[in-house]
Amino acid sequence: MTQPDIALLLSVVDGVGTFAFALSGATLAIRKRFDIFGVLFLAFVVAVAGGVARDVLIGAVPPEAIARWHGFAIAMAGGLATFLAYPLVRLLSRPVMLLDAIGLALFAVTGAQKALAYGIDPVIAAVLGMISGIGGGMARDVLAGEVPFVLRTDLYAVAALAAGAIVALGSEMGVPPAWTMLLGASFCIFLRIMALFYGWRAPVSRWSRDHGPPA
Amino acid sequence: MTQPDIALLLSVVDGVGTFAFALSGATLAIRKRFDIFGVLFLAFVVAVAGGVARDVLIGAVPPEAIARWHGFAIAMAGGLATFLAYPLVRLLSRPVMLLDAIGLALFAVTGAQKALAYGIDPVIAAVLGMISGIGGGMARDVLAGEVPFVLRTDLYAVAALAAGAIVALGSEMGVPPAWTMLLGASFCIFLRIMALFYGWRAPVSRWSRDHGPPA
Amino acid sequence: MTQPDIALLLSVVDGVGTFAFALSGATLAIRKRFDIFGVLFLAFVVAVAGGVARDVLIGAVPPEAIARWHGFAIAMAGGLATFLAYPLVRLLSRPVMLLDAIGLALFAVTGAQKALAYGIDPVIAAVLGMISGIGGGMARDVLAGEVPFVLRTDLYAVAALAAGAIVALGSEMGVPPAWTMLLGASFCIFLRIMALFYGWRAPVSRWSRDHGPPA
Repeated sequence: MTQPDIALLLSVVDGVGTFAFALSGATLAIRKRFDIFGVLFLAFVVAVAGGVARDVLIGAVPPEAIARWHGFAIAMAGGLATFLAYPLVRLLSRPVMLLDAIGLALFAVTGAQKALAYGIDPVIAAVLGMISGIGGGMARDVLAGEVPFVLRTDLYAVAALAAGAIVALGSEMGVPPAWTMLLGASFCIFLRIMALFYGWRAPVSRWSRDHGPPA
Repeated sequence: MTQPDIALLLSVVDGVGTFAFALSGATLAIRKRFDIFGVLFLAFVVAVAGGVARDVLIGAVPPEAIARWHGFAIAMAGGLATFLAYPLVRLLSRPVMLLDAIGLALFAVTGAQKALAYGIDPVIAAVLGMISGIGGGMARDVLAGEVPFVLRTDLYAVAALAAGAIVALGSEMGVPPAWTMLLGASFCIFLRIMALFYGWRAPVSRWSRDHGPPA
Repeated sequence: MTQPDIALLLSVVDGVGTFAFALSGATLAIRKRFDIFGVLFLAFVVAVAGGVARDVLIGAVPPEAIARWHGFAIAMAGGLATFLAYPLVRLLSRPVMLLDAIGLALFAVTGAQKALAYGIDPVIAAVLGMISGIGGGMARDVLAGEVPFVLRTDLYAVAALAAGAIVALGSEMGVPPAWTMLLGASFCIFLRIMALFYGWRAPVSRWSRDHGPPA
């Protein structure tokens, strides 16, 4: 593929991920009985919070997601679709989770790459890649009064961290970013699929069990 | 009115709004049994969080609310008044809600105007106006372990968004800011009064009802 | 002591405080049944959130805690130690609370000093010192779905605020920072010890009691 092709592809994948993230925010907002503006707002927050947190932390202000309205428009579309056709979105929750995994993977690798481009230490760049991916989901759960799902289960944070780490490590070793981003994203999606369809889990402390059933 | 008169008026209205916001933070903190420093801190957070979030996002650091101590002093006064005379503040909760609406309106229109002045896209500037208005209330509820009231009910977020949108639209159409800010703020206050006294509500998804009574 | 000695001492104290903060994050994460990555992430958040918030607010980006990986490494060590030896960490909770008080004191005085160095108003610099100290604990509790402990009890926020205020006041009066930082940190640790071992508390509003037992 030529450079413009790749840019277009990345842009499409980014849009798909943003849309899937917005669906997850809107779905939770409806469950929590937010009104339509709360639903749209939470859709927007999930779509942009991770990237916004990263950009604020590396000093890239105004954050990309705020400087342009594309992400906002996609998030509104996702929020409105969920508000109007909630049962359909729930019915499609499995496929939507795949799109969500693609968004997570893309946000994590591009987030780590951007942090590196701003001269951030590779170890921290991997963490910032993770935050780019999971920040939206964390903000969603905190605003909805839930303990962040992404920190508890389902290889969510670790899949994003692995993607960021592969990009950061590749950069240290001089591998071209396109390769490491592709590898990192693939590995992230692989981990999420294993978690969703085969029940892979990260270990929980054996002393957690003393504290009763999962919240 | 002359320019200095308007500046003075804006400054007074800003102080009144800050004070009303501080009362709402302190009231919730007392209900949650925070100690006096928790009460003062929550009063401060409600008074400044929206403006601080906006300023961090548009790159105006240190944020205005942090660069000067006026907002801090007003917030302390509001927090202390609530701590010492909680029953009186509760008794006056209706009038305080009107002051709160005035604060919301002012923060939303000045927030949108400031975002525009920093070159932010008008669509996003409207959202940043909303965030300037509702950010304090969101932070208050999250810190007190509640699902943000502003996202759920009472035309709160949408009133702030409408105010921001009127300012952003007016700027696109070349209308002088003073006019659109006045119109936006008036419309925001109107929506809040309709919500408070006539029970106007934004629609909730019909599928929200399947999830039991409001949290 | 010579200058390098003091720098080394500060660096050691900073590391000890970071480690103690990480233990508190990891302990709560285990109680909440987070998986190992959630545990490490929460340890990291407690260790850095206060300093990160301060640096973002004063415009010192990328924040110190993000620009270097030392804090990250110490937080990972603390998180991992808690994951593997939770009962031991709980057994040592009293000594760990002393280390935590030392971390709180150091973060508050260095935070206030850094804010002053960035030209922030002294009143606000004291508040930013407090935020440097308590920000990690606040973020910890919000992410774990709890009402922030630091706002409710135990002279936590006020000890940090007192430390910041002493530094800010000393700077106004022209006292050398080393003296005020030492005095501020000592007073902060003193207040925490009085709270932990002698039950000192800040006053709660008499109307808080009407709202039932503490949450």
